[in-house]
Amino acid sequence: MNRRIEIFDSTLRDGAQGQGISFSLEDKVKIVKALDEIGIDYIEAGNPCSNPKDMEFFKIIKNINLTNSKLVAFGATRKPEINILNDENIQSLINADTNVVSIFGKSWSFQVREILKTTLEENLNMIKDTIEYLKSKNKEIIFDAEHFFDGFKEDKEYALSTLKVAKEAGANVLVLCDTNGGTLPTEIKNVLEEVIKVLGINIGVHCHNDMGMAVANSIIAVEAGASHIQGTFIGVGERCGNANLSTIIPTLSLKMNYNLVVNNHINDLTSKARYISEISNIQLDDTTPYIGKSAFAHKGGMHIDAICKMPKSYEHIDPELIGNKRRFLVSEVSGKSTILQEIHKIFPSVKKDGEEVKNVTKKLKELEYDGYQFEGAEGTIELLIRKTIGKYKPFFKLNHFKTIGENPWNNSEFSSTALINITVDGKTEMTAAEGDGPVNALDKALRKALEVFYPELRCVRLVDYKVRVLDSESTTGAKVRVLIESTDGNESWSTVGVSKDVIQASWIALVDSIEYKLIKDIERKAKAYF
Amino acid sequence: MNRRIEIFDSTLRDGAQGQGISFSLEDKVKIVKALDEIGIDYIEAGNPCSNPKDMEFFKIIKNINLTNSKLVAFGATRKPEINILNDENIQSLINADTNVVSIFGKSWSFQVREILKTTLEENLNMIKDTIEYLKSKNKEIIFDAEHFFDGFKEDKEYALSTLKVAKEAGANVLVLCDTNGGTLPTEIKNVLEEVIKVLGINIGVHCHNDMGMAVANSIIAVEAGASHIQGTFIGVGERCGNANLSTIIPTLSLKMNYNLVVNNHINDLTSKARYISEISNIQLDDTTPYIGKSAFAHKGGMHIDAICKMPKSYEHIDPELIGNKRRFLVSEVSGKSTILQEIHKIFPSVKKDGEEVKNVTKKLKELEYDGYQFEGAEGTIELLIRKTIGKYKPFFKLNHFKTIGENPWNNSEFSSTALINITVDGKTEMTAAEGDGPVNALDKALRKALEVFYPELRCVRLVDYKVRVLDSESTTGAKVRVLIESTDGNESWSTVGVSKDVIQASWIALVDSIEYKLIKDIERKAKAYF
Repeated sequence: MNRRIEIFDSTLRDGAQGQGISFSLEDKVKIVKALDEIGIDYIEAGNPCSNPKDMEFFKIIKNINLTNSKLVAFGATRKPEINILNDENIQSLINADTNVVSIFGKSWSFQVREILKTTLEENLNMIKDTIEYLKSKNKEIIFDAEHFFDGFKEDKEYALSTLKVAKEAGANVLVLCDTNGGTLPTEIKNVLEEVIKVLGINIGVHCHNDMGMAVANSIIAVEAGASHIQGTFIGVGERCGNANLSTIIPTLSLKMNYNLVVNNHINDLTSKARYISEISNIQLDDTTPYIGKSAFAHKGGMHIDAICKMPKSYEHIDPELIGNKRRFLVSEVSGKSTILQEIHKIFPSVKKDGEEVKNVTKKLKELEYDGYQFEGAEGTIELLIRKTIGKYKPFFKLNHFKTIGENPWNNSEFSSTALINITVDGKTEMTAAEGDGPVNALDKALRKALEVFYPELRCVRLVDYKVRVLDSESTTGAKVRVLIESTDGNESWSTVGVSKDVIQASWIALVDSIEYKLIKDIERKAKAYF
Repeated sequence: MNRRIEIFDSTLRDGAQGQGISFSLEDKVKIVKALDEIGIDYIEAGNPCSNPKDMEFFKIIKNINLTNSKLVAFGATRKPEINILNDENIQSLINADTNVVSIFGKSWSFQVREILKTTLEENLNMIKDTIEYLKSKNKEIIFDAEHFFDGFKEDKEYALSTLKVAKEAGANVLVLCDTNGGTLPTEIKNVLEEVIKVLGINIGVHCHNDMGMAVANSIIAVEAGASHIQGTFIGVGERCGNANLSTIIPTLSLKMNYNLVVNNHINDLTSKARYISEISNIQLDDTTPYIGKSAFAHKGGMHIDAICKMPKSYEHIDPELIGNKRRFLVSEVSGKSTILQEIHKIFPSVKKDGEEVKNVTKKLKELEYDGYQFEGAEGTIELLIRKTIGKYKPFFKLNHFKTIGENPWNNSEFSSTALINITVDGKTEMTAAEGDGPVNALDKALRKALEVFYPELRCVRLVDYKVRVLDSESTTGAKVRVLIESTDGNESWSTVGVSKDVIQASWIALVDSIEYKLIKDIERKAKAYF
């Protein structure tokens, strides 16, 4: 095994600068626990100087025991031309009461002159005073050399002198920041090698993704000798984001054999990343390396044939190593193998060249032409196969439904209601329900009516609801595709509906969702009985 | 200027393997035109062998004149153990009638034996025969050495021998494919340098993003001597996608000074990428380098202060070079500068420490606490500032509305309707409209009623409608946030609404959208008059 690499997560600090990110105190605690569990070495949890919410957080988090991680409070060097004891920000850092503090200082002479508006000499004093003072309070210090690479290119001697001062003052790690994300991999390599030669202590990097290079630059920095990598777990951060740790970690661990604490928990990588994105209210891109829903999804017929023979033919690692899984996407470019595989889940004896495969393929293509998309909609695929090949009968008959949204005349509270009339085995049931919008009301009314006949539906609920407007360029005749995800507490499944009207598209997906659940229950009971 | 680099786009071929991608013939023609306009050298437009839709496309595209691009048809080497004249796929390639053909062949001995199930020798013959035959038909040949890097690691001599055969048979470019996306930057560099030393002709690379390295690997390949880069314009492709050309191009052009045809059109980069994502029906990630909506968005107060002083302090390039723009995000971590900047758009004389700034900040924070998010919702921000500081009066009074979605008793066509009653200047207007769902119907009814008083609303329409479920973990009491984008043909603007009920949240955003338009029209008229 290669040398030890420290992983430093800044989701709660630099990540909070990302568009759409806003953490509650509760969110922050959940994320700290998740990062600790997976084995992150340092968790930069906020800036107690600038944000009162962060200060409150540091009080709360003290009562929580962490196994793998050290908490870090973040702040700047002292202000120019004042005594450190009079700097309120530095006092807030002390009050945050963490064992580790990260301090950022300017290392680009341009920034010192034009943004800080002070002298190059005073900036060095600010770095020195701040680190010495915090060391005297027994803090472990991570020094973030802001804009280091830009500074190095413009004024190498000065950039290096900021590191030397920080080292002499007692900094434990010197972190070279590519703050603007504009540094090329080869530059990273050359600068790292030179810095390590001159300073020879624990060097880290902090990369941003403005050229799509944050991950590669971090990896190249490790090859060049860095032993401390900063980023955010799912890559959130200002502008194009920070280096994505969920991509860097498996590469360092599985491909390059470095010694990481996360190595012991690497098979939780996917679930932790998805959990953190849930808490962050960030829609994780399906194509995210390693952890994305499509990271091991295969669509081309030829590729799927090869994967079935030998997974390594189109997969760079076994998805199970990091807790992800392989998926075959059903689509119009799907080969027979994919469709046959879906059919075999229900009808194991169907032959590859049978009529059934042709009929299902034809039906799939027709619906795709109408705007359907079956990738990920396993519930609708199964029902389509059953409806085409057999082993399907409807569980109820719809007679009528109506949804009403009303802002009353007296402008009192707005309401959404739905009423529905269905027949099951000759018995008719009429009911109504209120909901948060027409689809939610309709879902509730339908399940209320059906629960009379199928009580097992009581545990089913919608967990996700996505609407996609198709042909968005045309103003008239646009269709919508609704994808819903349902759960019964144990399993979750997705179904899809397409229509000109969003309520009807939702209805189609809702009915599939419920029928899929009822079929699965019958299967389970049959399996348990026979 | 450095040497010439060829850019090869495979959006329509390898990109079509991406999850959620399905191009119509019309889409393909639009994308070819866009890629030609921006100056892509080669457009790989499909695989005429496997897909009848692709063959039809090649017939249609022949009638379209391209200025910068050469169209490429894609196919495999001939099948094992048959005469090339009997290979239907090769004949389809000829029938596609393009001047350039890209041929993929196996260069990983494992794949030859286990997937192709043929001998290493026969695979070399397949490469030789196919290229020689197509050369005899006067085609320019791009040879894609599939799995080259994996092959090189396992059986270097064989991998190199596939390239040698291709070169001797007359291939114009040899493309080294990292098909599984598992090759590290340093490996790319070493392999490229060795291949170029041995073969010394035009070498290309084709990288996949399974380790988040496709962009960096392509750039490193160019530094190591490659002169032909394959990818897809917005990075779509199987699993984690292909190398993203919209990231690679500006880096090669603006940062490394290479000679690209795209250099002449680089300021169209952002609009072209957004157009192609529209056509592909792919939601472009806001954080995409260079072209994303947030690529130059600043949120941290300190950063915004610095950017106002000196843009280069937190931007690696001027966003206007590639047709993007700088944005300041209004949020709870926004400093006074950001909020003041928004206020100054309407009230230029407000002072930084004035009461107005405090009141607007307070209101923003309250609404953010309720689930609002103002990033990108310029319409709602302006109205909020006006409502807080003054210069606002409502344009109408809502008395009542009702939306009805109905699946009729006879199961004939589903319908969504809305009725509305409003008052403007003491006059009451009641009207109704049908729509594709309740919100669409309500939007139409509201505008129909208001057009009686404000005919300028006739040109307004919704272009985008996004629903986000907040607190998705809790099953009850979840709120929804609706973001709508409207246009009047000249300008577009976004507004936001939050409520427990999706229809009410939509209503809030709709009203803001309409009032914003009416205020802008008054401003324009006033400016023209005085």
